[in-house]
Amino acid sequence: MAKDFTTREADYSKWYNELVTKADLAEHSAVRGCMVIKPYGFAIWEKMQAELDTMFKETGHQNAYFPLFIPKSYLSKEADHVEGFAKECAVVTHYRLKNGEDGGVVVDPEARLDEELVVRPTSETIIWNTYKGWIQSYRDLPILVNQWANVVRWEMRTRLFLRTAEFLWQEGHTAHATKEEAVAETEQMLDVYADFAEKYMAIPVLKGLKTPAERFAGALETYCIEALMQDGKALQAGTSHFLGQNFAKAFEVQFASKEGKLEYVWATSWGVSTRLMGALVMAHSDDNGLVLPPKLAPQQVVVVPIYRNEEQLAAIGEVAQNILAELKAKGIRARYDDRDTHRPGWKFAEYEFKGVPLRIAIGPRDLENKTVELSRRDTLTKEGVPLEGLADRIEGLLEEIQDSLFQRALDFRAASSHRVDTYNDFKEALEKGGFIYAHWDGTAETEAKIKEETKATIRCIPLNAEAEEGSCIYSGKPSNKRVVFAKAY
Amino acid sequence: MAKDFTTREADYSKWYNELVTKADLAEHSAVRGCMVIKPYGFAIWEKMQAELDTMFKETGHQNAYFPLFIPKSYLSKEADHVEGFAKECAVVTHYRLKNGEDGGVVVDPEARLDEELVVRPTSETIIWNTYKGWIQSYRDLPILVNQWANVVRWEMRTRLFLRTAEFLWQEGHTAHATKEEAVAETEQMLDVYADFAEKYMAIPVLKGLKTPAERFAGALETYCIEALMQDGKALQAGTSHFLGQNFAKAFEVQFASKEGKLEYVWATSWGVSTRLMGALVMAHSDDNGLVLPPKLAPQQVVVVPIYRNEEQLAAIGEVAQNILAELKAKGIRARYDDRDTHRPGWKFAEYEFKGVPLRIAIGPRDLENKTVELSRRDTLTKEGVPLEGLADRIEGLLEEIQDSLFQRALDFRAASSHRVDTYNDFKEALEKGGFIYAHWDGTAETEAKIKEETKATIRCIPLNAEAEEGSCIYSGKPSNKRVVFAKAY
Repeated sequence: MAKDFTTREADYSKWYNELVTKADLAEHSAVRGCMVIKPYGFAIWEKMQAELDTMFKETGHQNAYFPLFIPKSYLSKEADHVEGFAKECAVVTHYRLKNGEDGGVVVDPEARLDEELVVRPTSETIIWNTYKGWIQSYRDLPILVNQWANVVRWEMRTRLFLRTAEFLWQEGHTAHATKEEAVAETEQMLDVYADFAEKYMAIPVLKGLKTPAERFAGALETYCIEALMQDGKALQAGTSHFLGQNFAKAFEVQFASKEGKLEYVWATSWGVSTRLMGALVMAHSDDNGLVLPPKLAPQQVVVVPIYRNEEQLAAIGEVAQNILAELKAKGIRARYDDRDTHRPGWKFAEYEFKGVPLRIAIGPRDLENKTVELSRRDTLTKEGVPLEGLADRIEGLLEEIQDSLFQRALDFRAASSHRVDTYNDFKEALEKGGFIYAHWDGTAETEAKIKEETKATIRCIPLNAEAEEGSCIYSGKPSNKRVVFAKAY
Repeated sequence: MAKDFTTREADYSKWYNELVTKADLAEHSAVRGCMVIKPYGFAIWEKMQAELDTMFKETGHQNAYFPLFIPKSYLSKEADHVEGFAKECAVVTHYRLKNGEDGGVVVDPEARLDEELVVRPTSETIIWNTYKGWIQSYRDLPILVNQWANVVRWEMRTRLFLRTAEFLWQEGHTAHATKEEAVAETEQMLDVYADFAEKYMAIPVLKGLKTPAERFAGALETYCIEALMQDGKALQAGTSHFLGQNFAKAFEVQFASKEGKLEYVWATSWGVSTRLMGALVMAHSDDNGLVLPPKLAPQQVVVVPIYRNEEQLAAIGEVAQNILAELKAKGIRARYDDRDTHRPGWKFAEYEFKGVPLRIAIGPRDLENKTVELSRRDTLTKEGVPLEGLADRIEGLLEEIQDSLFQRALDFRAASSHRVDTYNDFKEALEKGGFIYAHWDGTAETEAKIKEETKATIRCIPLNAEAEEGSCIYSGKPSNKRVVFAKAY
């Protein structure tokens, strides 16, 4: 399976593309820029969804669903917003096809829409137009709503999961009576994302603020989590926006306060997408294929029998079923693969490539000795262990693997984080990759020049940045804290 | 809340529309034909999704995701399919907007797509084009895949949940090596739908086959479940299609059989949609609002305190929390509503209108007597019951309500099912509404004439129809079994 598989060293980008397709996560579709998420990839996404959805509900949010289409004029109501999205919108202009002369179908020119509809690139406008009808008084606030949906942003250069014309995501859209409450919500959801990334995806993230140039179109402040991939490039893994009263003003959404005054509503929005799938792959996987953190692995344990005859298979099957029952009782996802269409060696390679965290092999000698062979995907080590206490051992090992993947990523990030004070050192550090902590003068001009000259962007102004007097690596002007630069996906 | 609420008797259609909007299930959006599914409505849909998804997985299916867009030419590849869907397709022709002269945005004429994209009305074509790459040999079969997605079918006359331009659904698409296996899959999924409708939605359904005129565009056979609404109209609640080799031939999907022969793959597809929400409302609800079967109710029990002072509230709160803990331990979804912004009477009306199956009121006298007042939404009855054993009683009652709703719907269907043998009796029965069992000569002409003259359609040829010699109510020609006619949504 993994025989002709590219290594990270040889070509990181090719390694990624091959891994995503060969491990059955996703593939390109016949529609330019749109992907097919295959069952194995979707099973991982479903696990992500389930955990995030639980976290959203625990913080008081409810799901709802808003239309796929947005009237073209809505986009224009918030000036920055339309500027940010107009250039990448799929536009529906007609609502009917008819028979063409060549036997195919053509667009029916009679069925032209009065106003074109945009396929949602994000839903602030249609949602705030809806909230207008939901909000009259402070009693109607807050509104804490999330939707799971597909969105479309037309991209010319696409990569599976990382940048696709259509992608799946969740978008939270909340409405509040006060600025303080909206800011607190924005920060709360950033924490939810960071917790999810670290505890479930085993990926350490920096929490920070975007610079004005990198802000969401229409936001007053964009909070983000930034993760580091194994090739030293950064990946924005989630964003949470404080929208101020921009959308409330654009759509005339006011509420009567407790004091009876009419005020504009405060807004937030926040989202993560199938992009997280790309981050998951690039953070942990190796030259032997996927490495999945146990908490998100569709199968956490697989049991493979090794046998010469039916009698042996029957005896192994009995032991395997007992193991499965014990694992299931602990809520561990396990599979017994006794298919006779494939040999054990093929199965070992397959599960290794697909990143199943633990593999158990049972042969005739194991039966005699009351042992099994237990293999870890993350370390590629194996050992003989007694059947007695196996389920407890596995439970502990899964936790250990989860922690160890996180620690490995954390160590990698520490080793790939650089503090630089000159532009030359900056450019040198960029060659090595990683997060670069440097002083910046706070101007969009400097930010743009550095980007132009080096392709590095300011990933974020870390929330925990310490006050430190310094001078901008580019302009030499004064700065009072370091920001984080990197090349990014 | 329900004060100015239309009764079913007065105007069934208006009753439905008001109920859906006032009970916060859904509302019309600013986009013609598209709805907003509000949090309360979406919570019910999520319950449906969760149960169906479990049933799909238990029958061996996996979820995946395919593109929203379908190249226009794909639709034409299956002749019946394009005929069925071309007239209701939303078509994307451009991929960019630009600034217009009036300050708004206009479609950028430079950004015209070479081939227009259709927003999926259903996904057979894009999926079978994908399966072509997945299937080489019999070892790759069966493929048992489902997707949860939004689809768009442009409708001129829309009704919330029942008929909307965009709706949410699941669509299963399976690929098989033999005709027998595909037919078995088609029938299995029909059974899954029927089980779900009866056990979770508490709606009895007829299982049957569609006539050729009513078949899915591209299917060899369409199986359906048909439900009866309280106004005597039928509602198709789910369909499962045996597609034969039509799509495999259209997209050239062949496999090498065990014997090494190249053969076309056999296909099925099956789906249910947010239309089920409409069925749920129309099957059970009454002039006081929603009536929800406990298994799908977002809240199954609500506890409301009745008090004059803080001291009483504190004492009631303690009892309520104990009740909630006991209910939670049994997996029952309950809420304690001690908001001081609304009076108990308002809360009673609210929960009644929203169809919460059981309501518990606790007042000071209840505290003394160690009792509570327990109200059933389905029967609108209430009784004082002891605190002791309350959780067990509630658990039993929820089951009783679930069963009783189903039985009530079953009785209604029995009372609304008519056997007729003449066209006059047929037309008379149609006035009363309900399912009409009658002989039909099997021709599309007769079917079309009856529809034209009476608006009644053949809902299905029941799977369990008994052989019975008779003559067609319209043409007098011979017939060997009765089919089911009705007016339908």
